[in-house]
Amino acid sequence: MKVAKFGGTSLANAEQIKKVCSIVLNDSERKVIVVSAPGKRDSSDTKVTDLLIACAQKHLENGNAEAELEAVVMRFKNIANELGLDDEIVNLIRADLEERLKLDTSHAGTFMDAMKAAGEDNSAKLVAAYLNSIGKKAEYVSPKKAGLLMSDKFGNAQVLPESYENLKMINNIDGIVIFPGFFGYTKDGKVATFPRGGSDITGSILAAALKADLYENFTDVDAVYAAHPGLVHNPVAVPELTYREMRELSYAGFSVLHEDTLVPVFKAGVPVCIKNTNNPSAPGTKISLVRDYSPNHVVGIASDAGFCCIYVSKFMMNREVGFGRKLLQILEDEGISYEHTPSGIDNISIILKQNQLKEGMEQKIIDRIKAELKVDDVSIDHDLAMIIIVGEGMKNTVGTASRATTALAKASISLEMINQGSSEITMMFAVRENEAHKAVISLYNEFFLNKQYK
Amino acid sequence: MKVAKFGGTSLANAEQIKKVCSIVLNDSERKVIVVSAPGKRDSSDTKVTDLLIACAQKHLENGNAEAELEAVVMRFKNIANELGLDDEIVNLIRADLEERLKLDTSHAGTFMDAMKAAGEDNSAKLVAAYLNSIGKKAEYVSPKKAGLLMSDKFGNAQVLPESYENLKMINNIDGIVIFPGFFGYTKDGKVATFPRGGSDITGSILAAALKADLYENFTDVDAVYAAHPGLVHNPVAVPELTYREMRELSYAGFSVLHEDTLVPVFKAGVPVCIKNTNNPSAPGTKISLVRDYSPNHVVGIASDAGFCCIYVSKFMMNREVGFGRKLLQILEDEGISYEHTPSGIDNISIILKQNQLKEGMEQKIIDRIKAELKVDDVSIDHDLAMIIIVGEGMKNTVGTASRATTALAKASISLEMINQGSSEITMMFAVRENEAHKAVISLYNEFFLNKQYK
Repeated sequence: MKVAKFGGTSLANAEQIKKVCSIVLNDSERKVIVVSAPGKRDSSDTKVTDLLIACAQKHLENGNAEAELEAVVMRFKNIANELGLDDEIVNLIRADLEERLKLDTSHAGTFMDAMKAAGEDNSAKLVAAYLNSIGKKAEYVSPKKAGLLMSDKFGNAQVLPESYENLKMINNIDGIVIFPGFFGYTKDGKVATFPRGGSDITGSILAAALKADLYENFTDVDAVYAAHPGLVHNPVAVPELTYREMRELSYAGFSVLHEDTLVPVFKAGVPVCIKNTNNPSAPGTKISLVRDYSPNHVVGIASDAGFCCIYVSKFMMNREVGFGRKLLQILEDEGISYEHTPSGIDNISIILKQNQLKEGMEQKIIDRIKAELKVDDVSIDHDLAMIIIVGEGMKNTVGTASRATTALAKASISLEMINQGSSEITMMFAVRENEAHKAVISLYNEFFLNKQYK
Repeated sequence: MKVAKFGGTSLANAEQIKKVCSIVLNDSERKVIVVSAPGKRDSSDTKVTDLLIACAQKHLENGNAEAELEAVVMRFKNIANELGLDDEIVNLIRADLEERLKLDTSHAGTFMDAMKAAGEDNSAKLVAAYLNSIGKKAEYVSPKKAGLLMSDKFGNAQVLPESYENLKMINNIDGIVIFPGFFGYTKDGKVATFPRGGSDITGSILAAALKADLYENFTDVDAVYAAHPGLVHNPVAVPELTYREMRELSYAGFSVLHEDTLVPVFKAGVPVCIKNTNNPSAPGTKISLVRDYSPNHVVGIASDAGFCCIYVSKFMMNREVGFGRKLLQILEDEGISYEHTPSGIDNISIILKQNQLKEGMEQKIIDRIKAELKVDDVSIDHDLAMIIIVGEGMKNTVGTASRATTALAKASISLEMINQGSSEITMMFAVRENEAHKAVISLYNEFFLNKQYK
């Protein structure tokens, strides 16, 4: 049995929804379908979720959002009509939206979540109605009915562990299950959403709970690519990745999968396949615990900007038991998370996202480090990018570091930092932000175009 | 004014002491002389300090150490006679040793320190007597008289801050001051020694307290070499180093200077010169805050064995605020110090000296990490060596990492870890212990013999 999730562009209009249904009907294993809200039809379009947010905001501001509500209804009505459905489903959707607008607005976040979730919820109802209209057995299943329980951190909720047991009820449903992504319900019955992009997470949770054979994540690209297509021309598709590799790449800016998506399937051992709704015969990218594919031990190159580095030095630092721990404690006290801590014997660098250091926080941290740790020097270096090369196989290869650093040196890129732990699944290079693009190109060329190693 | 310190081999016999005195008299700036205890005359010889330790142990065991005492006296007597001194000084030394043997033995460490210090103390008296005998104004100054105060951690004592003010009294002494290295006195008048090799530290403290123009450290090598002569054939001498470079190299196994030596001179800004008693005209190695010498931005390559790596992985580790801090807290609780912590997003490696993990400590730490941090995986990899390349100039050089990793790759050496912080004064490579020698040679050849860069 497969769980298949379809993203917003796959639900954007009737034509796309027909593609989705054709894909679903083409494989009888595709039993549980998770859908997003209708996305953009073209680059100038607005996603349904954004229409809903605008509607909710207007309503919160002046208690009247008729025009905004109508814009949402019209998106659904257009799709329904083009799918040949009558207005019954449109009226249902309109009634649902009107009900939501009547909800208590005393807690804006709770109200906003209920509104935002309407996109996925009604998208699922629409798809189920369409499948029924063409004579296929399909059922919209509400996360409430299925027991998808969430923490009450509205807008950034997490699934509650008991959901996994509850969701097994889906196995008892005949026909194709159409399940809305992105949200669940708190224990007291309120809608709560995952972070944005969270339909991927819903699919992952369902695949894990139902012990699916495969979690298919349909999006609008053929595969995960070895580098970002916006940085490298026509990068190669990666046929297979491990969970860990995908996670490193996602974290460093590969936006194909929402970062949290992999946790449930990883824990349950369910493999994932990234596929393209618009080209379903393409093999896509399979993500699982181990992989056979081994091009040159490097599977991907990612870069992420917006980092800074707090540099701390103190003569004889390494003699002070607890120095590193106290330094990390200061950051923890201030709610700052960090990425890496490369060190010498008398100095340590802490790399972190610089957007955390707002309004005096930077000075506060510097002052605390000076006062509490009596350091010789503390400074902050801004505007760094982190380039990572990822690949499980690197562990057993002599020369990956050599090839990477030589490629960077040939491109005259100065390395601010290097970090490679004993896992050797990634090697990290910090460079100036304005050299990041060049760095990715030079590493891509070395590991994916260098014929010497092909 | 210069403070000059002479090591044990420079005081081993009359011939050496004459060399020392000739060096001292050759430069009127050499005003304060710190001496070690007589060292080995040849490879089969025993250092006076070791004779004293044997004497103290025998006395502690059965209250009688006449033969051992006599062995010490005879070493001094031989030197005195060869220097043409009469038995007056020998009798003084014998009386001093006999007094020490009468000290309270209820605290063995305190007794041991008083005995160990007799080597340096009487060596200083002997040198002063010799200089006087040849008509030179010289005075033995006791650390007690000069106010060199120590903490009462016998055998591993530290200088107390007020000593620096006290020691200025030395400026008021006419002629050459001969000062014994290695020890001072606790506030209640007991002898307390630095860690072994601590005559270097005494010299450094005196140079700092007296604001010397130079601290000359005379030993038995012409200079600090770019790599250990035991690992690389005929390595180049390094004319200049910064304090930070010397400290990194000392820490990683360059035994020319005791690790703690640099702290007082670094803080006072007094430059250091490493020189050879047996070849005093050689320029030696100068150590100061900045240097002009810049061969190829790498000044030295050191390696140190006996490390292990605790590898910890946990899916989504980077989401857990405080994970790194809690991990370091466990090590701190158990009294374990660490060297580096290279990390990925879901894993962290902690590199530490493996001799800290005795008798069940390894299992205890693994168990605590598992239980308290709920990790996916924790393992320990043993028998690693750390190779460092050191050089302040690396910061401004593109390609140092490339040259180093390429040299290691060409030698088929697998890199277990790489760590380069933003100071870029060192780059660290962890390799298997059995590949460390080959790694040092390949790096030395790249940075010091590669004509392409000369």
